[in-house]
Formats: sequence, C-alpha cells, structure tokens
Amino acid sequence: MDTRTSPIRLRLERVRDALKQQGLAAVLVPSSDPHLSEYLPERWQGRQWLSGFTGSMGTLAIALDRAALFADSRYWVQAEAEVAGTGIELVKIPTGAASHHLDWLATQVKAGETVGVDGSVLGLAAAQALKSRLAAAGVKLRTDFDVLAAIWPERPGLPDAPVYEHQPPHAPLARSAKLGQVREAMARHGANQHFISTVDDIAWLFNLRGADVTYNPVFLAHALVGLHGATLFVADGKVPGDVQAALKADGVSIAPYAEAGTALKALSERDTLLIDPARVTLGLRENVPATVKVVEAINPSTLFKSRKSSAEAAHIRQAMAQDGAAMCEFYAWFEQALGKERITELTIDEKLSAARAKRQGFVGLSFSTIAGFNANGAMPHYRATPESHAVIDGQGLLLIDSGGQYLGGTTDITRVWPIGTPTAAQKRDYTLVLRGTIALSRTRFPRGTLSPMLDAIARAPLWEQGLDYGHGTGHGVGYFLNVHEGPQSISKAVPTPHMAMEPGMVTSIEPGLYREGQWGIRIENLVLNVQANTAEGGRFGEFLEFETLTLCPIDTRCIDRSLLRQDEIDWLNHYHSVVRERLAPLVAGEALAWLESRTRPL
Amino acid sequence: MDTRTSPIRLRLERVRDALKQQGLAAVLVPSSDPHLSEYLPERWQGRQWLSGFTGSMGTLAIALDRAALFADSRYWVQAEAEVAGTGIELVKIPTGAASHHLDWLATQVKAGETVGVDGSVLGLAAAQALKSRLAAAGVKLRTDFDVLAAIWPERPGLPDAPVYEHQPPHAPLARSAKLGQVREAMARHGANQHFISTVDDIAWLFNLRGADVTYNPVFLAHALVGLHGATLFVADGKVPGDVQAALKADGVSIAPYAEAGTALKALSERDTLLIDPARVTLGLRENVPATVKVVEAINPSTLFKSRKSSAEAAHIRQAMAQDGAAMCEFYAWFEQALGKERITELTIDEKLSAARAKRQGFVGLSFSTIAGFNANGAMPHYRATPESHAVIDGQGLLLIDSGGQYLGGTTDITRVWPIGTPTAAQKRDYTLVLRGTIALSRTRFPRGTLSPMLDAIARAPLWEQGLDYGHGTGHGVGYFLNVHEGPQSISKAVPTPHMAMEPGMVTSIEPGLYREGQWGIRIENLVLNVQANTAEGGRFGEFLEFETLTLCPIDTRCIDRSLLRQDEIDWLNHYHSVVRERLAPLVAGEALAWLESRTRPL
Repeated sequence: MDTRTSPIRLRLERVRDALKQQGLAAVLVPSSDPHLSEYLPERWQGRQWLSGFTGSMGTLAIALDRAALFADSRYWVQAEAEVAGTGIELVKIPTGAASHHLDWLATQVKAGETVGVDGSVLGLAAAQALKSRLAAAGVKLRTDFDVLAAIWPERPGLPDAPVYEHQPPHAPLARSAKLGQVREAMARHGANQHFISTVDDIAWLFNLRGADVTYNPVFLAHALVGLHGATLFVADGKVPGDVQAALKADGVSIAPYAEAGTALKALSERDTLLIDPARVTLGLRENVPATVKVVEAINPSTLFKSRKSSAEAAHIRQAMAQDGAAMCEFYAWFEQALGKERITELTIDEKLSAARAKRQGFVGLSFSTIAGFNANGAMPHYRATPESHAVIDGQGLLLIDSGGQYLGGTTDITRVWPIGTPTAAQKRDYTLVLRGTIALSRTRFPRGTLSPMLDAIARAPLWEQGLDYGHGTGHGVGYFLNVHEGPQSISKAVPTPHMAMEPGMVTSIEPGLYREGQWGIRIENLVLNVQANTAEGGRFGEFLEFETLTLCPIDTRCIDRSLLRQDEIDWLNHYHSVVRERLAPLVAGEALAWLESRTRPL
Repeated sequence: MDTRTSPIRLRLERVRDALKQQGLAAVLVPSSDPHLSEYLPERWQGRQWLSGFTGSMGTLAIALDRAALFADSRYWVQAEAEVAGTGIELVKIPTGAASHHLDWLATQVKAGETVGVDGSVLGLAAAQALKSRLAAAGVKLRTDFDVLAAIWPERPGLPDAPVYEHQPPHAPLARSAKLGQVREAMARHGANQHFISTVDDIAWLFNLRGADVTYNPVFLAHALVGLHGATLFVADGKVPGDVQAALKADGVSIAPYAEAGTALKALSERDTLLIDPARVTLGLRENVPATVKVVEAINPSTLFKSRKSSAEAAHIRQAMAQDGAAMCEFYAWFEQALGKERITELTIDEKLSAARAKRQGFVGLSFSTIAGFNANGAMPHYRATPESHAVIDGQGLLLIDSGGQYLGGTTDITRVWPIGTPTAAQKRDYTLVLRGTIALSRTRFPRGTLSPMLDAIARAPLWEQGLDYGHGTGHGVGYFLNVHEGPQSISKAVPTPHMAMEPGMVTSIEPGLYREGQWGIRIENLVLNVQANTAEGGRFGEFLEFETLTLCPIDTRCIDRSLLRQDEIDWLNHYHSVVRERLAPLVAGEALAWLESRTRPL
C-alpha cells in the first residue's frame, strides 16, 4: 500500500481541513469519553480511528504540519509499528507522565494562535493543565471543538445494550443501603447534591449492570444524588420497566442521558454540590451555575466500591475457584494438543474463553486475552489478530494474561508456560519475576499505607540484577465490574491519601520482565487486603496482609531453583497445596491429573 | 513549683496581652527563621522559649483562651513531659503532616477575627496554605506580627561568628565553577537573577563556612546571583578582609544582611528572577516588584550540592574512617570502664566527643549526641540533661546516635550496645531492625528512582512482625554541612521529581524500633549512591547501588542468629571485614583489640 494514501493520512488531511475552516492551529484528541472511563465505547475511540494506534492509552495531537502520538513504554513497540508510515511521530513518554503533549502543543503552536479540544471528554484537571500550559505560551484554547463530529461520517452512535439489576446474593448490599452510605458522606461534606459521571461507580451504587463498554459490565449514565432522591441520566429504552419500578421504590428516577447538563444548570444557590474534579468533564462542570456552592472531593462511591465486604469476598473466592478450574481445563487440553494440533495465539484465546464460558456465574471476559509467544510476549499489551499472530511451535515462553467477569467477581491472571525446554536465561528471568510476585504477596504493612509505597518490594529482586519493567506492579480490581479500578495502585504513581490500603481492597500483583524481540514474563495474582494478626496485637497499629485470591498453578519447570531461597520455595509449595485443595473438587479427568501434576511440591 | 506561675504560663499571658493590644484572636509561632533552616539560631527559637518544648520541630498556636503545640510521633513522649502543667495542649500529628494547626486555628478563631503571624519567618508555601485555610473559615490574617519582638526582652541578637573559606583540597570545586553551574541553570530557566536564602546552599555555593547555627557550619546570609556578579547579604564584620578580597576576585560583593529586601525591591521589569518558593519567606518575597518576571523552581544549588563529586566522596571516606576510629576508642574505653566507673548518658557524650575531637579534620559535632539507655532510648530525639539523665548500670540496651563535622565530610551514626545480657525480646527487636538496615543497604534501584519509594524496603522486616517506627528511614547528609540535607528523603514524604536518586547523593539508612518505657533500637549507616555494574550492562537503564560509608562495628551480641538468613549474615560479615581493614591502621592498643573482637565473623 502506498502509505501516502493510507486511510490514516486521508483522515489527518480531513482533520487539517477542519482546522483551517475553524481557524485553529492544532487539535488535541485525548483517549477519553464523557465519563472519563479507561475503556471507551466505540463512539469515543476517535484517537484510534485517527491514528491507527490500537493501544488503550495514548494522546494524539495534530497540528497543521505535524502530528504526534504520546504513548508510554507499555505501548512503544506496538505504537511504533502501528503509526509507521502515517506521518504521525511517536513520542515515547514515561508511564504516568501527562505533560509531554502540552509541551509539544506549546512548542508547535505560535502565540496568538488557537488549539481546539472537545471539552465534553476532557477531565477538569486535564483541562486546567492544558489551559495554563497554553496560556503560559500565549496560545489560546477553544474547548467546544469536537473534530470527530466534523470528519467521522461513520461514527458509531451511543451504545444501546439493556441495563439489568445485579441481584442478591451476588450483590449482598442493597441499593438503598449504598445510597445511605453515599448520603452520609455527602452530609460530612455539607453537600445536598452529588453528581457522578463515573460509570462503574454508578453501576456499583445502584446495583445495576450493563454492556455498553466491551469487557466492563457498565452502562453509560450520569447520576445526580440528592439527600432523599436520585436521578439516573441514561439513554431512553435502556432500562426495562421492571428495573425502573425497582429503582423507583428506592427513590431513583430515570431521565434522558442528554439532560445531565440541564439538571446541573437547574441547581440553585441553596444547593451545595459535591463533585470529584478528577472524575467529571469540563463540559459538564461548566453547566453548574456560579451561585452553587461546590465542594470538590473524591467520589465517596469510589472509596466504598474499593472495599469489598466479607460477603463479596466470599463470592470472589468462589469465582476465583471457577476461574482456576477453567484454567486447568484449558492447560490440560493445551499440553496434550501441543505438537499434535496447530495451535496459534488465537486458538488459545478461543479455547480458554470457551473453558471459562462453561463455568458457573460466568458472564464474559474481563479484558481481551493476551496470548503472546516469545517476542509477542515482550509486548505487555499485545493482542494477536487474524492478520498477525504466532503459531505455538518449537521452543520458547508463552505468556497468557486473561480474565473473566463472574456475577460474584472479576478475575485477572497471568501465567507463563514453557514450550519445549526453557533456556537457562529464560529460567533466570522467570525466577526473578516470581521472586517479585512472592515478595510482595507475603508483605505485611500498616493499614493506611499508601499503595505506591509497596511498589519497590516487588521490583527489588529484579533491580538487584539490573532489571526492571515499564508498567505498574498492581491495579485495583472491581467486583463484577472493571478489571482496572481505583483508587489504589501499586506503582510509581504519586501517592495521594485516597490510595491508603484498607481492608477489603482487591489488587493485582504482577511484576514482569520484557526482552524486546525475545520473550516476556509476567506472573500475576489478585490479592485481598485482610487484617494481619501479629504477635504485637496492634501495639504498633493495625496491620494488613494479602490473601492470594487467584487459584492456578504457577509453572515450576521454568524455575531456576538455585535462585530461590527456602522461604520462597515454602511459599510456592504452600500456594500450590491451597490451589490443589480448592480446585480439585471442581475438575475431573485430564484437568484433575494436570492440576495434580502441576502443583507437586518443588 | 506552682505551675500556675511557671515561666511558660507567664510568657503565654504576655502573648495574650499583646494579642489583645493588637486586636488579634490568635498567633501562630512556627519553628522557623528567615532562612527556613531546620536548626534555628537562638534568636528564632521563640517557639521553644514560649512553650518549653525543646524538640527541633513543632508548631505553637496561641489563642486567647487556649494554646496548642503540634508535634509528630518522634516528639510525643518528650513534648508531653515538657508542656505538662503549662496549659498548652499537645496535639499529636502524623510525621510530615502540616495542616492540623491550620484546622485548629480555623476552629478556635471566629469568622471576622484575625490571626497574626511573622511573615518574615514563614515560607511561601506555608503562607499560602495558612491564607487559604483561614480564608475558607472567614478568618483574617496579618503577616507582619512578630510576637517575640513585643514580649521577649532578653531575645538573643543576630549571631556574630566569623565567616571563613572552605579551602582546597577539602573544597575540590572552585567557587567560580560552582557559580558557573548555577548560572547555567539560571539560563536554562531564562533568569538573569537568582535569590537564595538557604544558608547551606549559600555556604556550598561560595565555599564559605561559619558557626551561626549550632552543629551546622553555616552563616546567616542571603544571596542574589546575577549572570556576572553576585551579592552576599551578611552582617557587618563577619567576613574578614582576606575572605572579602577572595570573594571580590570571583565577582562576589558583600552587602549588609538587612539589605536583601532592598535589593529585591530594586529589581526592574527587565529582570527575570529565579526563586524557590519552598525556600524563601513571604516577608522577603513581598519585596519583589510586581513588574519583575518570576520563575519558580527549586534552587539549582540544592540539587548540585546533593550530588557529591568523586573528589568529595574520597574525602568523605577518610572522614568516615576517622569517625569510626573515634568510635572504636570510645567503645574500648566504655567497655572496660563499665562496672568500674560511674557512667551516665552525659559521660558518654563527653567521652565520645573527646574521642572525635582528637581526630584529623574534626571541626565539631554534627548534632547533639543522643545517648539513651533503656526507656530513654525509646525517645528517638531524646537528649540527656544535667537535670535528667540515666546512669548506665544493670541490664539493658544503650542507644547512641552521634556524628561529627570534618573538613572533608559530615558523619551521623547510630549503634545499640548491650549492657549486661540482652533478653530474647531485645535480641529479636534488634535483629529485625538490623534486617531492615541490611535489606535497604543491599538494594539496587534504577537511577532516578524517587527516594520515598525505597522506604518500604527497610520497613518490610519489621512490618512482617506487626512492628513499625514513626520516623523516616533516611535523610540526605551534607558535605561538611548540615547533617540533614535535601532534596532526597527515604520516608513517607510525597515524592517529588527532585527526590530522584542520583549518583553522589549521601543518605542515611536508619530503621528503628521503640518500645515506650522499655528500650529503643536504631541502626544507622550513611550510604553513597554509586553506579551499579550489572550483568545487563544498562539494557534496562542505569542502576545505582549504595556504598556503605559509615565504618564502625555493629554489635553482634544483640543478634538472634535464628532470625537472620545466610545472605544477611554474609552481608554483615563482609561489612565487618571492611570495617576492620579500614579502621585497623587508625587505632592501636585497646581500641584495636576492641575493633578486632567486635568485627569477628558471625
């Protein structure tokens, strides 16, 4: 294909025509939607449509003569390949960095010229940073420019999947009780109104689920919670009559999706509005009359949602056992089929998804399966496609990162399996990553420790050898909700008080190691924050420890035993005895034999 | 003494009279001076004079009917004892917290009333926080109220110790070269003027030293650095003629201390001033005309100063050997004298200081010696006084935290020594703290890692047992300068980009454990950031490791060997072999015998 006439180049030309028509010098296209979700409905995947880069995070800036994509190290290899030939330059930024595109714009655009952006998908904090950086360079900003509306004729509409109730026993806490918790928090802030755009917060608060965002059982809505009633702004026809009736019984009424802004405009000087500046867009915020008293604080629901109750934890343990049983069935098939059938990275996705689909409480996948063989495994966010995927054959390491949505929890697990005989170098890398997983899994820490402070514990065994990985060590995980959920994050994120580790939080532990062009390793379990009973009996404050939730053998053939200490071997053997005990009742035949063989003590 | 007529109560009455006279509802007395130094010249120790609390950090707020002292956990025991009976309530705040006194003021003072503070000792960031918190409560703020001027008749004047040059070879980099570095940084910020109030930055930049602040070889001055010349604002008569001549040769002129504000007032709209908002007071900042363009950034000298050159590191290693030799001589005396002579915590200070004083390059102590026996050791910032100190006798643990200023470096070391036979509980605590010191000492990490991210590595062995300590793990250390020096800090501080670990930084590693009323343990070494040569050869970026600088045996009689892993024993044995090899040439007789006995392999 002549790259000069590639669809991406044509789309960029259309963008530039629109810029000229509007008298703009550049446009910023963030990866975001009106709810500031991590995973975007297709309608808001304009950055991907414009750039060809399919990674989930990345910012595109298009000026009249240059264009740049800003992506962090997880995406460098992939992004480089995907934007090649489009004329878009890839700017490699550190994970978590958020100012490089601002600097780029301030440099590309002359003082007095104007940059456009769609304020309806721009978070307040991001908008503020953009405004002040451009102002410092004398550049003007227009926040009502939706470039996609102008140039994307086949742009998808709003998703229309129906909304349904998350029922007991899987939703142990009633909607009315959750609304009561949020209202108590509002009262503490002196607020009588609270506006929420965060779709998983809304799903949690109202015990509702949907299917508007791939892999995330959420639906597009905003919510305005008063001290007595609440309004859900959701597209017509999505909430069935019986669900509407159930909501009404709890004082929750339904209004059209597009009327959220109108409801904010209708607030008066008697109202005090609680709003989360990190979780509401500029477009919506601008509707609030200046006379309304605004209190800015994190959504109370974001905090409540992160602390799973003991009833929820009990369901999660069951979901983990179902998920682990599916893994056993898949791996048992895989190991006997290897060398007999043609297996590709795509086959793995199919077979593993089918094994999960048979499991009790399964609803769908929690994210797109990453099955990466050798060099493909070295791309942390790789996804095989029908056009480009590897056949599992010969020698090497196979990384599989996958997860499911169950009515009683969300799973996310990464394992690495040897194909043929692993080399000494592969075994060394694997064992060092495993040491990181074990080290953090065993850590106890004071309740309230800010989650980023734990990051180095998982990295230390790799750092010791001059190795590191470019992604975070762990993310929060939802309860039959988003697989990435805040507020906690075990990473290099700047700690905020909301990242305090509290009982009931579920987090991943997933150190890794990636050798570009060779292989990738990541060993991931989900863990639950539970009280630690220490001999000190609380004399030095309350302590937490991790209960490992994920149940699935960790391959031992890739281990270089000489690099493990005895206490680490003990941890692994204990883990495998738990996995065997919990999964054995759920599998039979070849899967049971596989489970028994792969959980033998080291 | 009748506490109702204690001097503190009388002083508080005088404060309240002054408040009434000025129409103020309360006054805030921070622990700070016009240079925002950690250690204050006596003139600015008004918080101590007013409250009786002798700790180095703490904020006092006095309203018409109540008064409160805000201190963190390092000081709780001490502060409780010192403010007892004064009518001042102790508010226990978490380490690093800086908003409790703001909340207290906002609660105590009614809307419409006014709080006074001395803006000439208030940092810009602190002033901003105070302003906005009070404004939110409708309380007014007056920033020109120096309550001490009004009520402290015997207030000490400005210190008048002479200024002297820090000469080669101990000052390996010439003043002109350092000024060149700072000017390059100014140019990068587009600034032609740079104002500095930080006294250790000024001492570093001009290769000058003084004795205005106890233990810190600095002198009170402000500096205004232009692109060609520089002005030092320092009290008349402090800089001898030959030093003035040497300064003049480098384009540095001297002006009266009080004229710093005038010089800032004289800047014009053609000037761009680089200023560090965390390191300049409100009082001085307010002199800058609104027409001057101001660039806010960390003092370049703060960053340069923290990165010791290889020539400086070589001097530090020599100073550490001298300091270790003094420790050997002291401990050899101590062990033979114990049970024969009466030894108190004060005797220890005298004898240890005398041993240091004999050492080559010694200038003075780097901080007030902490010698705490048993329960006294449980107060991390304890200081024995002639009125209150323990006799070293019977059984227990003796904690000694001490350090020296040498022409070629600053030392800071903590060791714990058994008196009699340590109990199993003491040995367990000691060994767990030692595991923390060893764990962090061995850590390698990517260059640029933000120092707070390493904190958990030292705490993990204690956390595992439900134990913790209420202070930071490590602080930066100056080069014949302040024993506490930024920007790095291994602690729970919120990481900022300036805390990036860079080659040449010197930091303490000092985990501890404190059982109130029983014993305290802390094991502290200073370490140097050096390049780590890993087998990966930089494929995963540049890595640093710690070279342990401190040379002194770590007691092995307090160790519970069953709690140490073999790799930890190996580290300790290796450390002791280095200590023996490096110190043996510097000691003789009993000190040598002691060194050999205490460095025997475990």
